[in-house]
Amino acid sequence: MRRSITGFSNPTVKYLRALRDKKHRRREGRFLAEGLRLLTDALEAGRVPEVLVMAEGREAHPLLDALEAAVDAAGGDVVETSAEILSKITGKDNPQTVAGAFAEFDTSLAALDRARAPIWLVAQALRDPGNLGTMLRTGDAVGAGGLILLDDCADPFSVEAVRASMGAVFTQAIAQARWEEFLPWLRGGAGQLVGASLRDAQPYRGAPYAAPCFILVGNESRGLPEAYEDACDLRVTLPMRGRADSLNAAMAGAVLAYEVLASLER
Amino acid sequence: MRRSITGFSNPTVKYLRALRDKKHRRREGRFLAEGLRLLTDALEAGRVPEVLVMAEGREAHPLLDALEAAVDAAGGDVVETSAEILSKITGKDNPQTVAGAFAEFDTSLAALDRARAPIWLVAQALRDPGNLGTMLRTGDAVGAGGLILLDDCADPFSVEAVRASMGAVFTQAIAQARWEEFLPWLRGGAGQLVGASLRDAQPYRGAPYAAPCFILVGNESRGLPEAYEDACDLRVTLPMRGRADSLNAAMAGAVLAYEVLASLER
Repeated sequence: MRRSITGFSNPTVKYLRALRDKKHRRREGRFLAEGLRLLTDALEAGRVPEVLVMAEGREAHPLLDALEAAVDAAGGDVVETSAEILSKITGKDNPQTVAGAFAEFDTSLAALDRARAPIWLVAQALRDPGNLGTMLRTGDAVGAGGLILLDDCADPFSVEAVRASMGAVFTQAIAQARWEEFLPWLRGGAGQLVGASLRDAQPYRGAPYAAPCFILVGNESRGLPEAYEDACDLRVTLPMRGRADSLNAAMAGAVLAYEVLASLER
Repeated sequence: MRRSITGFSNPTVKYLRALRDKKHRRREGRFLAEGLRLLTDALEAGRVPEVLVMAEGREAHPLLDALEAAVDAAGGDVVETSAEILSKITGKDNPQTVAGAFAEFDTSLAALDRARAPIWLVAQALRDPGNLGTMLRTGDAVGAGGLILLDDCADPFSVEAVRASMGAVFTQAIAQARWEEFLPWLRGGAGQLVGASLRDAQPYRGAPYAAPCFILVGNESRGLPEAYEDACDLRVTLPMRGRADSLNAAMAGAVLAYEVLASLER
């Protein structure tokens, strides 16, 4: 059942707009994603939005019909509104013609099935939501199981991270944990912890990677804390021909992830 | 000689502020960089700002003294001003304590010395200044000679690109050209053109890379035009375990660049 909203002060509009704010998002346990492409990725991954908002005057599209049908079938809310109001909701001048509000996923370590994939990405104190989204994309590209966020990372459900992930937020599992929880969880099963490091490390090429391989990259400016490096089963280093810290965390993660992928498939 | 500026309406302040605007930047042929770290990278690369702006009440630092001396020696302008005015110039709420205005470099292909490095990065229609800055960092990391920007790319001298480059804008050569100029220039000397492609391509690992190797990546959403791919000496493809376009352009460039580096040093 489609309903129409015409006023900026409509409670649903206010509720959706507020999801761009972290505090509100946390309280509601809901997040926003926009664009037909992203929402279709979500649907393919089995994620149906609770609220689907479509702009009036949009062009008809079979994928949009499929989305609407799925939301209807799940008992969700289908809303039609003006392009202006949709723009207000997404905070973009040229909004996509569709957006959705999703329930946040369970991001506990307990929800991860480590046997599901040979590679997992682990980021520590990753502050930039764009880098976070990029790491999700990289994980998707290498067939990783997901991204584990340690300590104080950017919010994976922020509008920026969701956008930068280009849909990978729906295809990759996401967990959030403190180091003190992560390490016992990791050691409670199979898993090789590989740290990108500059200290006492072996060349990243030809290192003895083993699945499931957990690739740990550190904060953008400080790298990994020493204690975290010490806990790694393998410390590997990438050649740096220029200045010492010229590779960014997400980039180092991608190069390492592709190396591990090639090594495991050899 | 240090001079002090106290008013927001001072012409130097207006001039510097305006450099954040592309049109003005183009007209002046000058760009802004901020932060002691970045300006020191510039100095080490032999780039001295024409105008150096320092915030009052900053902490003394030998690197800052060295910067000031270098600008003085080059006959440049050293300005001291309030933190508020510096914040106005850089457009950041918490500005660094120092910023500089630099003359844009010669970005013609003719200025490139291809024999200087075994790897060069080439980006086509790269729209995101953050991606551009990241590619400059990657180039620095693998010891590339520089970044060649084809067709309509983001401005390498924009505040965002300079920031994202973390100083690599000063250590990497940068050229801007149309494809129609680039190809004859490339063919006028030694150089292997390697395209990241999904079509009729061989696996990126173990491909016969040769120096100087020009690694060509396409636009973020459309990839490379077919004619560009056809002109490549080698088309290589990265495994994609997830959705087809999950790897971003800068990421694919980094993975390829590290592969080429390893291959050339084997």
